[in-house]
Amino acid sequence: MKEQLTIGEALIEALKRRNVQHVFGIPGDYALGFFDDLVKSELDLINTCDEQSAGFAADAYARLRGLGVVAVTYGVGGLKLVNSTAQAFAERSPVVVISGAPGVGEISGDALLHHRVRDFGTQMRVFSEVTVAQARLDDAEIAQREIERVLDAAETHKRPIYIEVPRDQVHQIAAPSTVKRFQPSPGDDAALTEAIEEATEMLNTAANPVILAGVEVHRFGLQDDLIELIEKSRIPFATTIMGKSVISEERDGFLGVYAGGLSQVEVNRAVETSDCVLNLGAMITDLNTGIFTAALDPAKMIAASADVLTIRRHQYANVDLRSFLQALCKAELEARDPLPPSTHAGPAIFRAKETTAITVSRVFDCLDAELSDDIVVISDPGDALFGAIDLTIHSRSEFLACAYYASLGFAVPAAIGVQLANDNWRPLVIVGDGAFQMTGIEISTAVRYGLSPIVLVLDNFGYGTERPMLDGPFNDVHPWHISALTKLINSGHAFEVLTEGDLVEALEAGLAMPEELVLIHVKLASDDFSPALNRLTSNLKARV
Amino acid sequence: MKEQLTIGEALIEALKRRNVQHVFGIPGDYALGFFDDLVKSELDLINTCDEQSAGFAADAYARLRGLGVVAVTYGVGGLKLVNSTAQAFAERSPVVVISGAPGVGEISGDALLHHRVRDFGTQMRVFSEVTVAQARLDDAEIAQREIERVLDAAETHKRPIYIEVPRDQVHQIAAPSTVKRFQPSPGDDAALTEAIEEATEMLNTAANPVILAGVEVHRFGLQDDLIELIEKSRIPFATTIMGKSVISEERDGFLGVYAGGLSQVEVNRAVETSDCVLNLGAMITDLNTGIFTAALDPAKMIAASADVLTIRRHQYANVDLRSFLQALCKAELEARDPLPPSTHAGPAIFRAKETTAITVSRVFDCLDAELSDDIVVISDPGDALFGAIDLTIHSRSEFLACAYYASLGFAVPAAIGVQLANDNWRPLVIVGDGAFQMTGIEISTAVRYGLSPIVLVLDNFGYGTERPMLDGPFNDVHPWHISALTKLINSGHAFEVLTEGDLVEALEAGLAMPEELVLIHVKLASDDFSPALNRLTSNLKARV
Repeated sequence: MKEQLTIGEALIEALKRRNVQHVFGIPGDYALGFFDDLVKSELDLINTCDEQSAGFAADAYARLRGLGVVAVTYGVGGLKLVNSTAQAFAERSPVVVISGAPGVGEISGDALLHHRVRDFGTQMRVFSEVTVAQARLDDAEIAQREIERVLDAAETHKRPIYIEVPRDQVHQIAAPSTVKRFQPSPGDDAALTEAIEEATEMLNTAANPVILAGVEVHRFGLQDDLIELIEKSRIPFATTIMGKSVISEERDGFLGVYAGGLSQVEVNRAVETSDCVLNLGAMITDLNTGIFTAALDPAKMIAASADVLTIRRHQYANVDLRSFLQALCKAELEARDPLPPSTHAGPAIFRAKETTAITVSRVFDCLDAELSDDIVVISDPGDALFGAIDLTIHSRSEFLACAYYASLGFAVPAAIGVQLANDNWRPLVIVGDGAFQMTGIEISTAVRYGLSPIVLVLDNFGYGTERPMLDGPFNDVHPWHISALTKLINSGHAFEVLTEGDLVEALEAGLAMPEELVLIHVKLASDDFSPALNRLTSNLKARV
Repeated sequence: MKEQLTIGEALIEALKRRNVQHVFGIPGDYALGFFDDLVKSELDLINTCDEQSAGFAADAYARLRGLGVVAVTYGVGGLKLVNSTAQAFAERSPVVVISGAPGVGEISGDALLHHRVRDFGTQMRVFSEVTVAQARLDDAEIAQREIERVLDAAETHKRPIYIEVPRDQVHQIAAPSTVKRFQPSPGDDAALTEAIEEATEMLNTAANPVILAGVEVHRFGLQDDLIELIEKSRIPFATTIMGKSVISEERDGFLGVYAGGLSQVEVNRAVETSDCVLNLGAMITDLNTGIFTAALDPAKMIAASADVLTIRRHQYANVDLRSFLQALCKAELEARDPLPPSTHAGPAIFRAKETTAITVSRVFDCLDAELSDDIVVISDPGDALFGAIDLTIHSRSEFLACAYYASLGFAVPAAIGVQLANDNWRPLVIVGDGAFQMTGIEISTAVRYGLSPIVLVLDNFGYGTERPMLDGPFNDVHPWHISALTKLINSGHAFEVLTEGDLVEALEAGLAMPEELVLIHVKLASDDFSPALNRLTSNLKARV
């Protein structure tokens, strides 16, 4: 490393030290200096078609690598990222938003510089609503300290942060930072001891306890601790939708994905009849619990999260998920009977009825049988997500979705982030036709950088998930001949799927060309829904 | 009108009363009830591919009709509109953002409903940064009053507003509103009299006064007053880029578009050597003044704006543009010599050199000769805008651009708003290839609703305007075969233009099919810039 770093270089070095290799974004004149630094650095810059896609790609990258970075210009770039950053906040994804800005020397008085809104603080104030820490690097004396402070916050809270770089500061020499890296405040040992005693007692006296594993286990890197706990205690486990694939679904003891009325009857029964549910980092959101069709009794729940531990109806404010889970692994838990095999164990078999029209249900049956271990499934919200609940994911973290905030159009840009985060993986995107019209064009970015996602578009003529709620012309979209996109971007292979035979053929062909972009246009009936959505609909009706 | 209106119906009726016929947007479950009301009403709903485009379309519509409306769902819809709303704020476009929201009965406690960010107030706080008024329609007793309050604010300030409709309130019966419509506070008559005396004296004693007409003349509907002033006083006039086409550029006395170093030498000289510049609603922004290459002496300036009147270096805080301009028309201004004819008068002639490679400069020469009076030119930021500075616009308001906030990707969605705002007009979009990759896909929306823009893509292999500032691979974009898009959407006609002959042929063919979408892909050299950008670059160099 050089002796003296500029602010731009110091920022890049700090990102490199924290496992970042790729930065997503689009330049603009207030950010050109930093983009120039980026291309001269060892980091790789990935230009998307539109800024919002850069935000989604960085979000996916952050979920897999621990930090994801999106860099843009002021106003017209930054303010396009509010939605993707809000999603990162809601779903605990540590995204670093870096925005160029007018120079310190330019903004004196009330200068009407382009891309300005109300005043020069507007963008910072907007981002203070959707990030956990913000820094404006306008003082070379403290810039390095500020960079470390906000990056620490992203890693500690697993939430997005915002960094603004005035363009005349990028090449200022940054004073070396002498402060030590942030040390999280230690938890309350006495409270932890008390909590562990109480939880151990509840678990040991329970007849049929169940672990409900959620997304925070993944975000805070506690998968090995979870496996240790399961193996030691022999308590079977389910996951939420957001936590799907947090550990392999082929492990002994796996019950399935629990999502209230969206889940399969057996999973529902196993969790809801348990006399002690140990919730490890599972957010009790409406989508995670099938629009609150879940029947979970707080009196039988131990719920550990990043923020608070709740046992029955009381809270331990200073006991976090990591401390609790790791202490529980060391507690005197009684071992139970050997775990049953996973309900998802064993190979799935799909026998295509060659000329039978394809349905949502059979798409997922087929995927379950065809997908190999190196495939990461990325589901866009809607039936692409609900249908995927029952898919078997073989390894950990090979399923990705925005299953809480649920921003349509996440999946195609996310595939770019996923494949760059780990080039051993090939992304398979499942996306509805409505969502594909929002951001599907980013297949152009994928081929530009030599990536090879398989993009499966479930075309049911519009926003299908909304039709059972309230239908109207507003749920329709203009029909697209999706195969024409390979001509637009002069790359990739497109398949049209009308029958089960078509689907097997397209998938097998796509899997056989691992270096190519593959588009599979699945033409469904407009009233065809996944089994999970049908289960939810009948459950909701049952409540009326 | 019905006796009793629900909140949703009352909102729709209020919009109808204020000249709104179209609403742009994308539904979502928190907004379905309102979308259902919309399709049952006399308003027309326009579904775009992505929300940001609905925001841009509503912005263009608002500029032409006095109000433009975009309706979306909570979070994933609303937060995608922050950038387009920021632009509407910066450029004084009265856009109404309507967002669905979780029901009042759903948000008690800390419920983790989908699309939620930090808390249920996050979105409202974000929009308070980019709008002039906000209302949450959660009380049927005052909902109608609230609707009138915020719509009045949009029309008074010509800036965007935000309305949030909790989904369980849409069908509540709204109590009738008994309050009178807002009356703007009267100006200060004595101050106005003093200001008019001072301005009249300055203008009458000036040797070569010039009027600089800006965008606020258009936003506040003062075009006829401006014409009256010009005819009475015989003072010649220039416009800014933002004010381009505020009145016809063929009128006697028109000097051209003044934009500092971006403008033609003669316009520059006429404005900068004037001993009294009467600035009527022209914002002194960096782009309007050629990155501040303008040399305007405050000691020789009378500047009237919506917010304040400034004469030389003192302010009249309570004298607004409308009062001042209308009073000036009645003041005792001495009539000068008859106005010279417009510098843009007379037909432009373009003689294509059939096989000569097309250049940016010649694209605009050709447009100047070919465009008929019913064509509205919409320029995206970049050279599509700089090049258009010298185009002759025949009627008022037939040129549209976001020439201050400058958000790339505005023009294609704006064309949808323009053609719906007035179906006698046909939009011609001029857009760079980089910007086209952001939102160009909305040609799908155009054909869905039977619109017929001509979209001229200036393809110079990336973000061309940035190259003279600082070049690198970050200014490149992936090459597109744009003609494939007509196959994607199964509509429209595409032309590829390599030579001057190709361009004339494509334009004439496009103009001859007024009901069809026309895509013209103009393939330029990557180092080819408009004459205006070349002028600016040499002016900036001259300052070094």
